[in-house]
Amino acid sequence: MAQVVRISDIAQYEGQEVTIKGWVYNIRSSGKLRFILVRDGSETIQCVVFKNDVSEDSFSAADALSQESSLIVTGVVAADKRSPLGFEIQVKEVEAIQIAPEYPISKKEHGTDFLMDHRHLWLRSKRQHAILRIRHQIIHAAREFFDNRDFILVDSPIFTPNAAEGTSTLFETDYFGSKAYLTQSGQLYAEAGAMAFGKAYCFGPTFRAEKSKTRRHLTEFWMIEPEAAFFDLQDDMQLAEDFVEHLVMSVVKNRRKELEVLERDISKLEAVKAPFPKIHYNEAVEILKKNGNEFMPGDDFGAADETVISQQFDRPVIVHHYPAAVKAFYMKRDENEPEYALAMDMLAPEGYGEIIGGSQREDDYDTLLKRLKEHNLPEEAFKWYLDLRKYGSVPHSGFGLGIERTVAWISGIKHIRETIPYPRLIQRLYP
Amino acid sequence: MAQVVRISDIAQYEGQEVTIKGWVYNIRSSGKLRFILVRDGSETIQCVVFKNDVSEDSFSAADALSQESSLIVTGVVAADKRSPLGFEIQVKEVEAIQIAPEYPISKKEHGTDFLMDHRHLWLRSKRQHAILRIRHQIIHAAREFFDNRDFILVDSPIFTPNAAEGTSTLFETDYFGSKAYLTQSGQLYAEAGAMAFGKAYCFGPTFRAEKSKTRRHLTEFWMIEPEAAFFDLQDDMQLAEDFVEHLVMSVVKNRRKELEVLERDISKLEAVKAPFPKIHYNEAVEILKKNGNEFMPGDDFGAADETVISQQFDRPVIVHHYPAAVKAFYMKRDENEPEYALAMDMLAPEGYGEIIGGSQREDDYDTLLKRLKEHNLPEEAFKWYLDLRKYGSVPHSGFGLGIERTVAWISGIKHIRETIPYPRLIQRLYP
Repeated sequence: MAQVVRISDIAQYEGQEVTIKGWVYNIRSSGKLRFILVRDGSETIQCVVFKNDVSEDSFSAADALSQESSLIVTGVVAADKRSPLGFEIQVKEVEAIQIAPEYPISKKEHGTDFLMDHRHLWLRSKRQHAILRIRHQIIHAAREFFDNRDFILVDSPIFTPNAAEGTSTLFETDYFGSKAYLTQSGQLYAEAGAMAFGKAYCFGPTFRAEKSKTRRHLTEFWMIEPEAAFFDLQDDMQLAEDFVEHLVMSVVKNRRKELEVLERDISKLEAVKAPFPKIHYNEAVEILKKNGNEFMPGDDFGAADETVISQQFDRPVIVHHYPAAVKAFYMKRDENEPEYALAMDMLAPEGYGEIIGGSQREDDYDTLLKRLKEHNLPEEAFKWYLDLRKYGSVPHSGFGLGIERTVAWISGIKHIRETIPYPRLIQRLYP
Repeated sequence: MAQVVRISDIAQYEGQEVTIKGWVYNIRSSGKLRFILVRDGSETIQCVVFKNDVSEDSFSAADALSQESSLIVTGVVAADKRSPLGFEIQVKEVEAIQIAPEYPISKKEHGTDFLMDHRHLWLRSKRQHAILRIRHQIIHAAREFFDNRDFILVDSPIFTPNAAEGTSTLFETDYFGSKAYLTQSGQLYAEAGAMAFGKAYCFGPTFRAEKSKTRRHLTEFWMIEPEAAFFDLQDDMQLAEDFVEHLVMSVVKNRRKELEVLERDISKLEAVKAPFPKIHYNEAVEILKKNGNEFMPGDDFGAADETVISQQFDRPVIVHHYPAAVKAFYMKRDENEPEYALAMDMLAPEGYGEIIGGSQREDDYDTLLKRLKEHNLPEEAFKWYLDLRKYGSVPHSGFGLGIERTVAWISGIKHIRETIPYPRLIQRLYP
């Protein structure tokens, strides 16, 4: 063995002998030559085995290899203009580690259920690599954005005693004899964080037991939720647009190769510059009317409505001032038009729909208590939340961004199930 | 109002008029003077109100303030040598936003239950700020470490269909008519990630329904779990020590002020340099014997044993080669001493006990299948996991680091319940 290197670093070793440890991505033979496309997780590289250059053992090891067999290859790094990487390996030695039986995922088309049943293997494909590297970049950029702005990470709990929106879409578990619910959002706790640190965020998995079988829904998904004291709706919308611009630019800058693998139209991402268009709910309703959508003013938008609205713009659009009646109890109302909440949703372009939901929060104790009662929520469970309006209440706002929907949009893929390593859907709990 | 600034940035504004938005941390009066200690989440600063310098409205606003009332203060930044920050504000205007009734957390001693019931407010204290900023730093440094080493984030699912260690310590939920368990560890899924990306990690909350009422146990805690292909136990131990050194150095460098608030002996942290001592299980047993611990060789260590072992060293110690019989089914055994597993635990010094558990994984299909059967685990649920040994199996290793135990050790605090914003214990689900 020579020095073990990652394929992604191969350019540094031109002309040198190196060792690569990985798996067979593809193999073909031609006379005395074997062309092994090896992947090591960082990249793939062609390894050329010429019978006259290697021992008999090495050549028969190469001959025994199948797709996804594991191996160790030693050879010399040579420039090769035909390779996307610019290099290939002229092999001196091949050692097979384990020979794989016929790999279940072949080049032919597979049904989604089949691929999902083999998700643990499907993750090895180029396309899934590209998506998950983009996911990693988005999560990295999201933390970077808030860390650089002095937001403090205040993790919200997953087990909660109270159900902010009723219990019908909550997963429930026995908690040493009492009931606990899995969080749907860390927001209420993030608000306490904002009162402690001025600016706080939480980031973790959230859960919805919704029976929605759409391409936008998962039962388990990740959300990042900033919350800031002395922030009004305007501040909140500006934070949201700066944030989303940062995410998109970070992917465009650092994951261009992955976007190309996915055949993403990068020019559409490059157009995503703040400020974003911001329209009142009533303006959004006008757009729906003009486009002939059947829509009852006063309702919340459905996925089809969001698509029509978002298609009017070349970058994300923020819709604000939704009717208070269709929004959550904790949202503050506009004192000048009290039937509207100081709420905002950000809709991604190209029909991707809502990626952010946020609002200015009700900061008056008595009003919040009234809203709790209107929503038939138990005052006792929200005592701590009411305390935030009792001890130093201030205007404050925040939002939640869904990681998977954002990954889907930026990657340009249709269904959210490929945006998370192990998607959980109504009928999908395996692997 | 003047320019709104964060108190932590105040040094940049000496001699200038600024506005601060925050809460009253403390207030006292002396004749025509009111001294308001204001916190804004970034820091606290003394604001001096002199009756002759402000309007009548401002002075009576100041007089009405109570602890944790919210306010906006405008004044001039002046150097002040007595202040820990080096500056104070000479106030020109005070506006009260909301007057708080008597704050439940006073200077007097409170019982733990009382403080935990008021966790949403307790988070505002200097001590909790210090701990949670250290937590934030540790999480930041942890991601930084793996991101810089090209580990790819491959999030493990929270909902799992299979129970790796039996179901007795698992939380269970109804999943649209079938049963799902909340994950105890993302490791098995991280292994699939390592086979896809060579190096992968997952980071998220994990859950244990253990009835342990100790200062080291939470029912909900965060773990970061790296996993690497072609890594043996030696590589794994070295990765772990480099990682922990990085975490400690990152806190010492960036959170010195917070360590001082907690009266942490920083010299003990500065001693935490790799390489760490590494001892065989049998050597650890010798240490216990010498120290008169009642201990049955072959058993796993209890908390008291870990304390004695860790107290022999000035930095974390790694114990490796535990008896296979007390370790998990997926651990590979040492072929030279097959009654021992290629396992390792890292024990933090000063009696903090285990912060890392890891191992080289069994990579042989038939052996792993045998182990599953020995542990009475359902083969069907682990079919996907067995696939990893079928399609390109390679030697691989990984570990999990518990965030809260690490925060407790580095912060030098006794009980793990203060290391997470909202601790979940057997009898604690609120707030």
